[in-house]
Amino acid sequence: MENLIYWVGLVAVAVTALTGVLDAGRKNMDLVGVVVVGITTALGGGTLRDLLLDRPVFWLSDQTYLVVAMATTLLCFALVRNLRLPPRLFLIPDAIGLALFTILGTQVALQWQAPWLAASVLGVMTGVFGGVLRDVLCNDVPLIFMRGELYATASLTGALTLIGLQALELSPVLAAWGGMTVVLVVRLLAIAFHITLPTYTARQ
Amino acid sequence: MENLIYWVGLVAVAVTALTGVLDAGRKNMDLVGVVVVGITTALGGGTLRDLLLDRPVFWLSDQTYLVVAMATTLLCFALVRNLRLPPRLFLIPDAIGLALFTILGTQVALQWQAPWLAASVLGVMTGVFGGVLRDVLCNDVPLIFMRGELYATASLTGALTLIGLQALELSPVLAAWGGMTVVLVVRLLAIAFHITLPTYTARQ
Amino acid sequence: MENLIYWVGLVAVAVTALTGVLDAGRKNMDLVGVVVVGITTALGGGTLRDLLLDRPVFWLSDQTYLVVAMATTLLCFALVRNLRLPPRLFLIPDAIGLALFTILGTQVALQWQAPWLAASVLGVMTGVFGGVLRDVLCNDVPLIFMRGELYATASLTGALTLIGLQALELSPVLAAWGGMTVVLVVRLLAIAFHITLPTYTARQ
Repeated sequence: MENLIYWVGLVAVAVTALTGVLDAGRKNMDLVGVVVVGITTALGGGTLRDLLLDRPVFWLSDQTYLVVAMATTLLCFALVRNLRLPPRLFLIPDAIGLALFTILGTQVALQWQAPWLAASVLGVMTGVFGGVLRDVLCNDVPLIFMRGELYATASLTGALTLIGLQALELSPVLAAWGGMTVVLVVRLLAIAFHITLPTYTARQ
Repeated sequence: MENLIYWVGLVAVAVTALTGVLDAGRKNMDLVGVVVVGITTALGGGTLRDLLLDRPVFWLSDQTYLVVAMATTLLCFALVRNLRLPPRLFLIPDAIGLALFTILGTQVALQWQAPWLAASVLGVMTGVFGGVLRDVLCNDVPLIFMRGELYATASLTGALTLIGLQALELSPVLAAWGGMTVVLVVRLLAIAFHITLPTYTARQ
Repeated sequence: MENLIYWVGLVAVAVTALTGVLDAGRKNMDLVGVVVVGITTALGGGTLRDLLLDRPVFWLSDQTYLVVAMATTLLCFALVRNLRLPPRLFLIPDAIGLALFTILGTQVALQWQAPWLAASVLGVMTGVFGGVLRDVLCNDVPLIFMRGELYATASLTGALTLIGLQALELSPVLAAWGGMTVVLVVRLLAIAFHITLPTYTARQ
């Protein structure tokens, strides 16, 4: 199980690095810009979680994550820039990455004795912060704040499901699968049916 | 006294969350965006201070802060978006929040043995960094860098007053009140008389 | 030698603070904005390195760095805003700052047992992150992602040279000089001959 989580984590790093590269491409960045944005997108969420919990930063303890993120970015740069890919191709792997990072983040926070609400917030941060950094570096308003298809909402629902299931004394493994399933189902249903949240339109 | 500071701290969190919501509203963000920007504005300054001092992050130790920030944001989202409020209404609570966060930040930094100038910088960071993050997330040039009405200057003056009064061996409580008064007086006088700092206009 | 590194580090802080002031000037910031951007540019890279390695933040342990960054910023504000300086004047000191910060960052990371690839990434971060923060605060797409003249590339090449030379059991002092020379030579040759990296132009 441990082993499975580790490998799935590496896949999630590769997938989110890929989304970073695609976004950096829209800004005509050079190779260095693309690599920095790709790595930051892939490792940003977990790094923030580890800093806030005062844990050793995960990619400094085991640099496999860094190698995977770099290799994916360079490979994409070499291949993707000469391909024409439909953006929607990445929605499913991106949702899987979101589910994995959210659940990993929440579990780590619970292990480090964070109270439950704070743990769910840390889970959401782990899931979405890489994308926020990507958008800030590309000088956009972060997409998760605007595009409504229940991105952070899916993440929060899954984190709370995991915490609820653990409070019911379910085994951690089952609780993790439950949480991941909820993230995926909420996110994919929202994409399929264009479900969005209400928007704040200030009248000032 | 401890108790008073705690409650006033919670009020300051609520007030700064409110300013975050109002700013996010101008960008037509959805509910998640508004919540994230509100929480970040309220908790960002103290989080940076705790990371730099290598202290446990305050809202992970006591999640009341997080609950207050979230509840304020959701309440605002429900109420304020259907109200038309004059922005100047918030200048006084915002100044109180600035005063409180600055003094709390400086005191914590002094307790953790930061040297005096560094402690005053940490106090200013605690006071203003939430607003800087808010502006970066909303993709604006941070307002404190542009609008002159002595925002960070008020904060720095108050932090240095606190440090000076403590060096004169005044009781910490009196020194804190002195520092807060200075922040408030400088900021409110600057607003009332439109006092601004000189601007750098490069000739390149 | 220790002593030399310390003094050169202070010079590098002053030089990078200066580049921050010049950039803030282009945005018509006021005095506070200029000071914040100057200090952030000068101290940002080392701060990120120390946070990630869970070391005491360098300018909190020894506030001389903070004093130098502040004094430089204020002096620039007083002098430079009434002078017309050619921007290319700063390319050489800026390259020296990049070389110094990269090598200092890599060495500190190696001392704290970071694995080699992670150490080189931390070295590059120390070298370039101040400038990234400066650009984010000024609401620009970070320059190192766009302008090709081998900025981060020079930094990475130098960091890897240092690591390679240390692996060959060269003395740390010689390895440091080797790494710094490589950063400088790569960067200055790239400026002289307008060498740039390939750009990603997505066809989506």
